[in-house]
Amino acid sequence: MKSLFKSIEEKFYDKETPYLVIDLENVEEKYNILKHYLPFSEVYYAVKSNPHFEVLGLLNKLGSNFDIASIYELDRILSIGVCPDRISYGNTIKKSMDIKYFYDNGVRLFVTDSHEDLIKIAKNAPGSDIFFRLYLDNSGADWPLSKKFGTCSDNILSLVEEAKKMGLNPYGLSFHVGSQQKDIEQWDMALCLCKNIFDICKKNGYPLSMLNLGGGLPAQYLMKDHNNVNLYFSFIKKYLIKHFGKNLPRILIEPGRYMVAESGILVTSVILNTKKNDNDFYRWLYIDAGKFNGLIETLNECIKYPILTNRKGKKVEMIIAGPTCDSLDILYEDNKYLLSENLCEGDKVYFMSTGAYTSSYSSVEFNGFPPIKTYFL
Amino acid sequence: MKSLFKSIEEKFYDKETPYLVIDLENVEEKYNILKHYLPFSEVYYAVKSNPHFEVLGLLNKLGSNFDIASIYELDRILSIGVCPDRISYGNTIKKSMDIKYFYDNGVRLFVTDSHEDLIKIAKNAPGSDIFFRLYLDNSGADWPLSKKFGTCSDNILSLVEEAKKMGLNPYGLSFHVGSQQKDIEQWDMALCLCKNIFDICKKNGYPLSMLNLGGGLPAQYLMKDHNNVNLYFSFIKKYLIKHFGKNLPRILIEPGRYMVAESGILVTSVILNTKKNDNDFYRWLYIDAGKFNGLIETLNECIKYPILTNRKGKKVEMIIAGPTCDSLDILYEDNKYLLSENLCEGDKVYFMSTGAYTSSYSSVEFNGFPPIKTYFL
Repeated sequence: MKSLFKSIEEKFYDKETPYLVIDLENVEEKYNILKHYLPFSEVYYAVKSNPHFEVLGLLNKLGSNFDIASIYELDRILSIGVCPDRISYGNTIKKSMDIKYFYDNGVRLFVTDSHEDLIKIAKNAPGSDIFFRLYLDNSGADWPLSKKFGTCSDNILSLVEEAKKMGLNPYGLSFHVGSQQKDIEQWDMALCLCKNIFDICKKNGYPLSMLNLGGGLPAQYLMKDHNNVNLYFSFIKKYLIKHFGKNLPRILIEPGRYMVAESGILVTSVILNTKKNDNDFYRWLYIDAGKFNGLIETLNECIKYPILTNRKGKKVEMIIAGPTCDSLDILYEDNKYLLSENLCEGDKVYFMSTGAYTSSYSSVEFNGFPPIKTYFL
Repeated sequence: MKSLFKSIEEKFYDKETPYLVIDLENVEEKYNILKHYLPFSEVYYAVKSNPHFEVLGLLNKLGSNFDIASIYELDRILSIGVCPDRISYGNTIKKSMDIKYFYDNGVRLFVTDSHEDLIKIAKNAPGSDIFFRLYLDNSGADWPLSKKFGTCSDNILSLVEEAKKMGLNPYGLSFHVGSQQKDIEQWDMALCLCKNIFDICKKNGYPLSMLNLGGGLPAQYLMKDHNNVNLYFSFIKKYLIKHFGKNLPRILIEPGRYMVAESGILVTSVILNTKKNDNDFYRWLYIDAGKFNGLIETLNECIKYPILTNRKGKKVEMIIAGPTCDSLDILYEDNKYLLSENLCEGDKVYFMSTGAYTSSYSSVEFNGFPPIKTYFL
C-alpha cells in the first residue's frame, strides 16, 4: 500500500489536493473476475457510478454493455462508439421526450414500473423490449433503495399484459437488492419471486426471456461485515440454477459500485488538527475534501471508507470534517477514526475505495470550492 | 402569485425545466429592510448562500460587505471591484496558503476558533484583525451548526491573549445561532455570553471593539412556525442595548438565507404522477429537479419549501421525488404535500423560496443531469 501511495505522490507531485486517482487496471480486473464467475451474464455497467470517459472507454473495449440513467449519459456513451443495442435505459423515471430521444438513437431496451410510464414508452418507443422492475425491500443493504423504484409482483403481471396490448414486447424482469448488499440470501428470495412471475406469465401466454439481476455487489469499505464478493458470485449462480434450472433466461447484471469503487483513491490534505475546546475528549480533523466535493456517500455515515495516512505516532479517535462552512459537512462523528494525533497541516489523508459515486456527485461550487478533479494511474 | 408565474412562463417560455429564477428586486428589498431596522449594523453578505454575479453586483452597489468562505469566492468578489477592506474571511477552516492569499490581496479581517488556526494566521497574515467565534448549541434552528464551528468562552479568552502576543489584533467576537433560527431568545443568550467576554477581555487589558452577529435570520418556508423577521430585528436591537448599552461596539451581521432565499423560484416539471402499486395509499410525484440538482436542503426534509402548481382538481397527499436513480433523491416522504391528483407530465411545479443554498450546491453531473441553470427576472 505504501508503494502505491509513493507512486501516486511521484506521479501527481504537482497536483493540488483534493483529487481522485483511478486505477484502470483495477476496473479491468473486476470486470474479468465477474465474467469469470458469471460467464453467462451480460454486464450492463451502471454508468452513473463513474461516468469518466477513461472508465467507459475501457469497459467498452472489454465488451461491457451500458445501463443508462439520462439522455446526457446516452450522448456520452454514443460518443465513444457504443452500438445502441448494447444500451438499456434503466431509469424508471423518464420524460416522454427523453424516451423518444433514446428510441431515435436506436435504443430498444427500456425498464418500467408503472402504468403511466408504460403508456409513454408505447407512444415514444413503439415495439421496444420492456423489462419490469420488481420492488424489493432491500433489508441488509448499506444504501437501500426504497419504494421509489419497482412495483409488486401482481402489478407486474398487469403491466406485462398491458405492454403486450400496447404493441410492446414484454421481455423480462429486473430487481435490485440494494447497493452494498451484505445479505447474499436476498438474491435467493428475489430469484424465487422472479421465477414465480416467469411461470405465471408463461401460463398467461406472455413468456419472458430476460432476467436483469441489477447491482448490489459490495465493494470493500471499512466494515468487513460482508463475505468476499467471489462467494456472492457462486451463490448467485447456485440460486439461479435452483430456481430456473440449467436453461437460464438471458441474464443481465448491472454492476456499478462493484466495478469501480475499489479503483479509486481520494487524496486529501489535512487543513487543521485541533481540539475545539481544551477539555474536549475528541480531536477534530479538518481536511480539504468533504460532502460537497466527493464524499457525499458519508451522509448519515452510510459508507465508511478506509482512511490511511503516513503519519506516525499514537493513534487517537478523531472526528473528521470537510472544509466548507456547512455543519452538514462532517464526514464521521458517530464513527470515529483511529488516526495519528500528530497529523499536521498538509499531511496527505487517503480515502480508499472512492471510485464509485464520488466525482460526479461533486457540487459545482459550494462555498466556491471547485468539483473534485480526477486523474488516472 | 399567479401573475408572477405567468410572467415567468412568458419570459422563459423557451427554457427547459428545471431552472431557477431570481428576482433581484426582492434581494434589494431585503437589504433595505435590514438596513432600515438595524441601521447601525454593517452587512457582510454570506456569499456561499448565492454566489451569482448578478446578486453580488447588486449587493455591492447597495453598499454591502462580503463574508467569504474560500479563495475561489475571494477571486469572484475582487473581480467585481470590491475593496479588500469590505471582506472578511469567515471560514474557521483555512489552509496556510489560503490565508496568505487573502492577506496578499489586502484582506485584514479573519475569524478563528482554534490555537492551531491562530498560529497560521499570525504567520501568514501578520497584524490582522481577528474575531473569535463563540460556540453556541443552536437549539431551535432548522439547520443547526454543531460543534464543527466555534469554541467555548474560556478558550476564547486564551486565544485573545495568544493573538495579542503573536502580534495580531484581537478585535471582536462572532457567533451563529444556527440557520433558520426560530427562537429569537437565542440572540439574547448569545449576546449575554459575548458581553461577558467583552468585559473580561477589557479587564485583562485586551479590549474588543467588534461584534459579528452571524446569520440565522429566517426565510419564509412552508412552516409558519417562526415570527415575522421584522420582529427579530426589533428584539435583536433590544437585546443589544440590554447587554451593551447605548455605546454599541462595531456591529457586523452576515445574512445569507435571509437575503436571497425568498428571491428564488425553482421551476420544475412533472415527469410522472403514479401509484407504485394499485393498493398503495399515497401517490408518487416524480419531478425533474431533486436533491442533486438544486434541492439538497431537503435532506432529512429539513427545509420545507412551499410548492405550488396551476393544476386544478382534488388535492391529495403526495410523496415527491427527484429524477435520478438514487433512492436518496426523495424530497418529501414523511412530510407529504397536498397537490392536485390530476398533475400530468409537463405540468410546472414551483418551489418557492429557493434563492439560497440551491444552485451552487448542484452536483456537476450526477446521473448525467447538468447543474441547475439560473435566470434573472
